[in-house]
Amino acid sequence: MTSAGNSKEVKKDEIAELARRRGFLWQAFEIYGGAAGFYDYGPLGARLKRRIEEEWRDFYTREGFYEIETTNIAPREIFESSGHLESFADQAVVCNHCKNFFRVAEGVKVSENCPECGGELEAAGEFNLMFQTRIGVPKGESDSGVKKSEGYLRPETAQGIFLNFQRLLRFNRDKLPFGIIQIGKAYRNEISPRKSLIRLREFTMAEAEVFVDPKEKNNHPRFEDVKDRMLRIVPGEDEGGEEEEESLEEAVRSGIIANEYLGYHIAKVDEFLERIGIPRAKVRFRQHLREEMAHYATDCWDAEFLSERYGWMEIVGVADRGDYDLSAHASFSNADMSVHTEPEKIIPHVIEPSYGIDRIIYALLESSFYEEQVGKEKRKVLRLKSEITPIKAAVFPLLNRDELKKKAREVFQKLRDASIFVEYDDSGSIGRRYRRQDEIGTPYCITIDYETLEDNTVTIRERDTMKQVRVPIAEVKDVLLKRE
Amino acid sequence: MTSAGNSKEVKKDEIAELARRRGFLWQAFEIYGGAAGFYDYGPLGARLKRRIEEEWRDFYTREGFYEIETTNIAPREIFESSGHLESFADQAVVCNHCKNFFRVAEGVKVSENCPECGGELEAAGEFNLMFQTRIGVPKGESDSGVKKSEGYLRPETAQGIFLNFQRLLRFNRDKLPFGIIQIGKAYRNEISPRKSLIRLREFTMAEAEVFVDPKEKNNHPRFEDVKDRMLRIVPGEDEGGEEEEESLEEAVRSGIIANEYLGYHIAKVDEFLERIGIPRAKVRFRQHLREEMAHYATDCWDAEFLSERYGWMEIVGVADRGDYDLSAHASFSNADMSVHTEPEKIIPHVIEPSYGIDRIIYALLESSFYEEQVGKEKRKVLRLKSEITPIKAAVFPLLNRDELKKKAREVFQKLRDASIFVEYDDSGSIGRRYRRQDEIGTPYCITIDYETLEDNTVTIRERDTMKQVRVPIAEVKDVLLKRE
Repeated sequence: MTSAGNSKEVKKDEIAELARRRGFLWQAFEIYGGAAGFYDYGPLGARLKRRIEEEWRDFYTREGFYEIETTNIAPREIFESSGHLESFADQAVVCNHCKNFFRVAEGVKVSENCPECGGELEAAGEFNLMFQTRIGVPKGESDSGVKKSEGYLRPETAQGIFLNFQRLLRFNRDKLPFGIIQIGKAYRNEISPRKSLIRLREFTMAEAEVFVDPKEKNNHPRFEDVKDRMLRIVPGEDEGGEEEEESLEEAVRSGIIANEYLGYHIAKVDEFLERIGIPRAKVRFRQHLREEMAHYATDCWDAEFLSERYGWMEIVGVADRGDYDLSAHASFSNADMSVHTEPEKIIPHVIEPSYGIDRIIYALLESSFYEEQVGKEKRKVLRLKSEITPIKAAVFPLLNRDELKKKAREVFQKLRDASIFVEYDDSGSIGRRYRRQDEIGTPYCITIDYETLEDNTVTIRERDTMKQVRVPIAEVKDVLLKRE
Repeated sequence: MTSAGNSKEVKKDEIAELARRRGFLWQAFEIYGGAAGFYDYGPLGARLKRRIEEEWRDFYTREGFYEIETTNIAPREIFESSGHLESFADQAVVCNHCKNFFRVAEGVKVSENCPECGGELEAAGEFNLMFQTRIGVPKGESDSGVKKSEGYLRPETAQGIFLNFQRLLRFNRDKLPFGIIQIGKAYRNEISPRKSLIRLREFTMAEAEVFVDPKEKNNHPRFEDVKDRMLRIVPGEDEGGEEEEESLEEAVRSGIIANEYLGYHIAKVDEFLERIGIPRAKVRFRQHLREEMAHYATDCWDAEFLSERYGWMEIVGVADRGDYDLSAHASFSNADMSVHTEPEKIIPHVIEPSYGIDRIIYALLESSFYEEQVGKEKRKVLRLKSEITPIKAAVFPLLNRDELKKKAREVFQKLRDASIFVEYDDSGSIGRRYRRQDEIGTPYCITIDYETLEDNTVTIRERDTMKQVRVPIAEVKDVLLKRE
């Protein structure tokens, strides 16, 4: 196996082209000219996404966390309390000619000309990133300023968990700590997103909210299990800001990572990213600078992926939200968010690993794509881990003959009946069929030939090594399901 | 097993109370007083929902359909073309005093007084049911009537599939028929929903769009497999409107159901509802009257569930959308939505089974809830099918002793490691622990006692019969996973 012949220059566009052509990712509303910040997942992309989400759910379920599902729309009060209405905003400029808005953080300044039409740019102040709508008021009607009809699309899934805190505490029999997860859509009315998966207006988050007694933050019951994990970290300015590699235990004991709970969840994020196949050499944890910290966070670390296209980019955030959210909702709603722990009442703190699923998919596609020379041909291959590939295996008749096709259909059906997601393909040469599967990451190709009709064996060809082994049909399932 | 002692009067409130108390369903934003039409799924509800969705995905994947995932927000043009901006509306009245809107279809008329404040009701015309927002325009800013910034939350998932039709056709190698599925949120800005799962402003749909050559609508390749299925049907006015029971084949051959494709998918809906445990005696298929048909449908049948609380209610719709959507998008966007089939170009027709997941969950909770007398105690039990219960089994130590708890923990962990979702519980009497599991539908309780320590056997107690069997630990997994 070799990754020689892999050129970074070519790669960028190859991935986008492959993702579009093979049904991973499509610009949404393309027949109407598209809209920046919106993508659809095609058949293979949706399967890849689903399998990553299932791995994630499984990973945090094994931590003992329960999943809930809360609404995408919420009334104004929620985001008044959470601080998003006031603080969830980017600085913007607006063109006085074409009226387009631009994001100051992306380098467009008042002193420059409009990148769209050359017009004059004026300061436009803060641009709140939430999508607004109205609940129960017809679209044509004025709501006469009645605040209660205002609704917003959630900018994170977390608030739905905080709002249900009392019920969740009761579900957990009034004991701390406990963790709750949610996977779902979130929405940010970005000012001028480029057309890519990196800055979407609608995206999928997978978030865990871990509620812990603040006195216990340095006492995670399973810290031992992860303490020796080596992490590549970039501490914030107070710690010098220099990238270093050290064990989780060293980072927590020296105070670079503030407490065991935060540290434990940073290690878990690192473990999950490795599990789904993000190369460890391309992941680091960077502490937020004070000025980039979200309004709710007392500390925050980003898991960053080193993209060949975009440089270091955030794919997961791990925040210590302190008691910010529960206290804010307690104060605005008058609900009691406290927990009785001997000898006092406390407001729990929240540790939050927050995954951007779309960016993780981008990172997986980019880092698993290889183009290599095989004999006289170029081979494109997605080296995705077998646990997350859209298709588990493809079944081929070697030749386009009825007796082989019939047998291949039987093998296909047998595997489908065992809930293994396989595809059947009998069109084109066998080499062409291998290439088609390589470029969508299918780890195994099963070929039915005349020997199969005699002794019920098939060849299984492995994607990365391209090696073939001959296996009895009865053993195919085990080969396909072995965990790498 | 008996369902005696089950009183309909008590039942209604018992279900709502149980759903809230045990973490199935919670009124959203409750600490802020709630908002009509919005519900959250708690830990058990979210697991139940997930398992129903998985069964559904599995069911249609076995039909050969692929899933995609498209955006919740879409620009105005999409719904101009689809007809939703013009036609997706309810007639409303408005109170001239409190300014509340009411839905005429629910019986509130202009000649009456406001049900909220007694004020005078005035006709308010059509109330469009889509949630409107603005894309890329800050919430404070006027968009000066620029139409292109308007966006809407999708009222159905289907449009996202139609918009990608060309790419999906290509994915299917330019051949008809093929089916595409999507599970996701949809939104309807209902005028005055009551607080229940039945009329939500945000809800989950599971939709399949089947694209077929119109000439082939009476030639479904697997019609034979389902033709003998007996259906309870209520034809529309043209057919007399009388409820009858007949086989699918009779209904199609006599013209009551318009074609084989529509008939096949009606039968599949019936099969799926049975598979997840909706009692067949409580399901019928009713053809829409002309005046209730959606603007896009040429024919539509509802699968209705007979609710003790709400009477017959729609839980699935099966529509023949003809070429309405593809033709509309072709005409508005100038995209070519035709398919070349010998000897001509055609616009495919669409058959659409569209499931309301939240209503199905309500139907399952209502129809599986039983209250029965066991000795001197009342037992509440959810007789959900084992394939969809939130918890597969609970593991108990018989007594609160360390050696039993240790062994029970081992059994618990062994099952979790085998990816079986089990709970551990050692609090309260064994009888109380059984009752706790009964009322959330857990099909099996596994008890570890002193005999277990001697011979590695446990008792498995079955939810519905309350019978116990003694089984070696090594065989527990097989008992739990057998399909009913």
